[in-house]
Amino acid sequence: MKSIYLKNINSPSDLKQIPKADLPLVCNELRQFIIEEVSQHPGHLGSSLGVVELTVAVHYCFDAPYDRIVWDVGHQAYGHKILTGRRDKFHTNRQMGGISGYPVPSESEYDSFGVGHASTSISAALGMSMAATLKNEKDRNVMAIIGDGAMTGGLAFEGLNNTSMNQNNLLIILNDNQMAIDEIRGGFTQYLSDITTSETYNRLRYKAYKMLHKAGLINEDKRKRLIRLTNSIKSGLSKQSSNNIFEGLNIRYFGPVDGHDVVSLVKILTEIKNYKGPKVLHVITQKGKGYEPAEKETTLWHAPGAFNVQTGERYADENPNIPLFQTVFGETLLELAQQNEKIVGVTPAMPSGCSMCIMQKSMPNRVFDVGIAEGHAVTFSAGLAKDGMAPFCNIYSSFMQRAYDNVIHDVALQKLNVVFCLDRAGIVGTDGATHQGQFDLAYMRCIPNLTIAAPRNEHELRNLMYTAQLPDMGAFVIRYPRGKGTTDKWRNDFEKIEIGRGICLKEGNDLAVLTIGTMANPAARAIERIEKEQNTSIAHYDMRFVKPLDADLLNIIGKKFKKIILIEDGALKGGFGSAILEYFADNQICVSVKRLGIPDMFVEHGLPEELYKMLGLDSEGIQKAIMEVVSGQWLVVSN
Amino acid sequence: MKSIYLKNINSPSDLKQIPKADLPLVCNELRQFIIEEVSQHPGHLGSSLGVVELTVAVHYCFDAPYDRIVWDVGHQAYGHKILTGRRDKFHTNRQMGGISGYPVPSESEYDSFGVGHASTSISAALGMSMAATLKNEKDRNVMAIIGDGAMTGGLAFEGLNNTSMNQNNLLIILNDNQMAIDEIRGGFTQYLSDITTSETYNRLRYKAYKMLHKAGLINEDKRKRLIRLTNSIKSGLSKQSSNNIFEGLNIRYFGPVDGHDVVSLVKILTEIKNYKGPKVLHVITQKGKGYEPAEKETTLWHAPGAFNVQTGERYADENPNIPLFQTVFGETLLELAQQNEKIVGVTPAMPSGCSMCIMQKSMPNRVFDVGIAEGHAVTFSAGLAKDGMAPFCNIYSSFMQRAYDNVIHDVALQKLNVVFCLDRAGIVGTDGATHQGQFDLAYMRCIPNLTIAAPRNEHELRNLMYTAQLPDMGAFVIRYPRGKGTTDKWRNDFEKIEIGRGICLKEGNDLAVLTIGTMANPAARAIERIEKEQNTSIAHYDMRFVKPLDADLLNIIGKKFKKIILIEDGALKGGFGSAILEYFADNQICVSVKRLGIPDMFVEHGLPEELYKMLGLDSEGIQKAIMEVVSGQWLVVSN
Repeated sequence: MKSIYLKNINSPSDLKQIPKADLPLVCNELRQFIIEEVSQHPGHLGSSLGVVELTVAVHYCFDAPYDRIVWDVGHQAYGHKILTGRRDKFHTNRQMGGISGYPVPSESEYDSFGVGHASTSISAALGMSMAATLKNEKDRNVMAIIGDGAMTGGLAFEGLNNTSMNQNNLLIILNDNQMAIDEIRGGFTQYLSDITTSETYNRLRYKAYKMLHKAGLINEDKRKRLIRLTNSIKSGLSKQSSNNIFEGLNIRYFGPVDGHDVVSLVKILTEIKNYKGPKVLHVITQKGKGYEPAEKETTLWHAPGAFNVQTGERYADENPNIPLFQTVFGETLLELAQQNEKIVGVTPAMPSGCSMCIMQKSMPNRVFDVGIAEGHAVTFSAGLAKDGMAPFCNIYSSFMQRAYDNVIHDVALQKLNVVFCLDRAGIVGTDGATHQGQFDLAYMRCIPNLTIAAPRNEHELRNLMYTAQLPDMGAFVIRYPRGKGTTDKWRNDFEKIEIGRGICLKEGNDLAVLTIGTMANPAARAIERIEKEQNTSIAHYDMRFVKPLDADLLNIIGKKFKKIILIEDGALKGGFGSAILEYFADNQICVSVKRLGIPDMFVEHGLPEELYKMLGLDSEGIQKAIMEVVSGQWLVVSN
Repeated sequence: MKSIYLKNINSPSDLKQIPKADLPLVCNELRQFIIEEVSQHPGHLGSSLGVVELTVAVHYCFDAPYDRIVWDVGHQAYGHKILTGRRDKFHTNRQMGGISGYPVPSESEYDSFGVGHASTSISAALGMSMAATLKNEKDRNVMAIIGDGAMTGGLAFEGLNNTSMNQNNLLIILNDNQMAIDEIRGGFTQYLSDITTSETYNRLRYKAYKMLHKAGLINEDKRKRLIRLTNSIKSGLSKQSSNNIFEGLNIRYFGPVDGHDVVSLVKILTEIKNYKGPKVLHVITQKGKGYEPAEKETTLWHAPGAFNVQTGERYADENPNIPLFQTVFGETLLELAQQNEKIVGVTPAMPSGCSMCIMQKSMPNRVFDVGIAEGHAVTFSAGLAKDGMAPFCNIYSSFMQRAYDNVIHDVALQKLNVVFCLDRAGIVGTDGATHQGQFDLAYMRCIPNLTIAAPRNEHELRNLMYTAQLPDMGAFVIRYPRGKGTTDKWRNDFEKIEIGRGICLKEGNDLAVLTIGTMANPAARAIERIEKEQNTSIAHYDMRFVKPLDADLLNIIGKKFKKIILIEDGALKGGFGSAILEYFADNQICVSVKRLGIPDMFVEHGLPEELYKMLGLDSEGIQKAIMEVVSGQWLVVSN
């Protein structure tokens, strides 16, 4: 398709020059542009296609960046990025040094709030809206655009509950596509479907409101009373369920409206933008809209990788026999659940992402997808464990930050048998700073009663999962990375791993390298190369457990070696290396220790291999660091 | 009042022997017992008085511990403790070695789930209810008892949203007293007041339900349809607002009922306990019920300290001139806000507890009490900061665990100017394990872009607050303890503190003591005593900042001293001491370091001075530890 409009849109002001009637053409071009770019430069597809019309309408009706558009989650903001001066850079999306796949204020003033995790938009936008009130910027519009999937997060409810507390004009646009990444469930989803079917009633109510508004009968003081009024109009109207949670919370509700009719969207946004008080516009969209394969299989096409636009063929995995760590988790969980009837699975909206869908398919009654609700996932697991079940609760490392108190207060304090599997630990790559799993070892390590382990390969992952579900193991954290392991022969027989026991992978005499998790692999390659090239003998230990530490092994290492290198794919402040330093200091073992890991910074997007290289955590970087220690040079790690 | 019934109730089975008509007498005795005990052995009063009838009714109708009673927050469970075999121990409430002020499963099998933080009960109870379903224990009843204050927490909503997803018979008892600790606000509160006024409608609907149930017309399959049915009955009925959020989420709603009519409560609980599917019973209670002073001033009498039962006189502060740290915070915040119009205050339901009420009274439009919603408090602060305000967000240290990702994802990553004031850091005392502020330094330290400081006294607190609100300071954490400072002359002139700059409190030659925060004070006393008694010279540094560290000062200290002692009132795993160990290791400064702090354990309840003594963090313990280092003995800290 030839671009007529899009090529000339370098900012929203260019968009505003286009006649309203031609906006559907702009939408077509924008949609096509997204499809073609994402087919070559992989990223999120379905959710951005779903909000093409909404994006165009919002930028047509509002004056960003003066007006604040706060996207929730943010992976649906591709159209927004393309319309706000980043069309020419869009081919660098999610690449190292390129633009981010999420809104980032330092990238553009149009990105009014940084995001990557779900459910934050209402709270953040309410803060901005109150700032406008306090600064007497009465003409500033602030809106949150949030999907129905993100509405299941408690933070979104906390935001909603506070919306009517103060004088503000926040606009919440509820982008209802009946989907998160996976199909979502829960009372709220059912609820949205109920109000969606009450269209006649909603249309009538909206007309009544418009009429009163035009006649000057509505003002801020009367708003609350009016909500009651429309509720009583409602009572007389419909046989259908017409509860309205939003109006229960004193937030004016408009909708539902067709999210793919851009002209109508412009009309309603223009009308309601000046209505005082907090309000919700409920917009119905279709995930993947306008690209048939993505419409049909929304989960597959959430982030499809590279694909052929014409045929819809997604390019195949280069090494199909070597599975992802997540697949090993998923298959192993099912295997264990077949042997141990107490095992149940709990996932906050990520059955595909963490491969719990494998067990879910086979044992639907024993897997609980609780929606985007990490806190609930953990506390619900605690309740299951308290009454005798053995829950495996799988949460991505960076999302576990959202359930931190639940781990402390509901699980660890009560010594409950919950197994936390932290997928996507360490560097995750192109999702960038919001998604890197770099803090988990540091924030988990201070929690009493936790066992914390990280497998270096698939066999260890399986053995740790097996060990964790044995009776009375208490709260058990297993963290493992995104991406692939190392072998196609991953289905070993289960073996119990002794808690807190490290392992010597290679003997040596001159210095010792201690690794945690999959850092063992680049470290082993580095050691092999060094020993080939140099007359030096390096020992390599996989500590396996960050907590409890293997005191016996550390005593032996501390006696034998004067130089020790610690390697982890997590935060240097407080992580694995700090645990070892503490042990040595507390036991007066005096050794020189060099620590490799992630320094005190947020790590932006890029391919994992690029980022590990940048951090000096690939085998070359590790080799260089070891050589500096061997040769007596020593680069001081910046603090 | 003479005890007739209560003295013979040693378990709920004793209670069940009493004729229903006499239950009001039991309630009177129980209420009187609580008032008298709490007047002498301080604890929470108002909330336990409010649920006396509910507690008696629940234990009368259900069979705990087989049936699971999950209390939310838990400070209202005194009646429950007294009825379940702990009457004779109740005088040890909250004392070291005594019973806990909260439900603790290791204390009693009747405490089905441990608690101390709000909003967890629905998720935990749902887990237990699903465990019963999975284990085919069809006769087991599971209930969550949750206050309206706790309902504003997002976790409670996540629980509600998941309640209707699976087959379970969870009973949620909503204890609606229109209060958290402070008066609460927000849409949900307004909403509850709305449904409370729709009594006619609710009564009618309940009768219809009972009729259908008796006629055998209701079963699990028909439940959802029935909810629709009653909604359509509703439509024809009332002019009042009759939205029902619970039924919107497919949870059957009963109520509101009078929570102080024990006989009626027994009747309705007996009736609804066998209804299938998740259900809410909405109970209206009065906080402080039955003790006039507590009824009148609910916030003051939430946890009143010791008092005279007859006169209602609360016993006075022994040292009224030396203020609490929280008072210094509150007064200073107002003072700064008068100078800097960008300053706003944000508190999650603790305006009295953190003394933000001082600013709130004077500048109501610039203080936001967001209800029990820590995550929202932080992300809302981020939004305010993003648009130019200077929020001071005050959250107790242990409650900040509930907003961890919000600090990382919404504030630190975006380098926003939010000042976090963590009250109740370190040991809090009689509230026990759920409330100790022991983890903050460890979990905050790994977050990039944060400044983390702890004042050793009131002047430093004021200067840090002053410094933090200066332009472009970024995200700034100030943590300080519960309780009193040291001086009545706390209102110094503000001075800017250089970021990351420690201070030498006392020169010395033989060894160095490095402290953080108020640990400086017992350490100074210990050093003074040692120097009087021994021929030794001890230097004392207050590092002030855990992040960034004072590298210059550490280099000087590292050169001058071979023996260094680090003292903190936080977790030894990953905290202040670890930060210093990391600095020394990374910079190859080889020194012997002994660390004092909180070991890897949850710290139970007791007076702060008792707990600090137990942990060796009082001045005697510190003195002993220093002497061990001085004398060349060295006690290895257990790992």
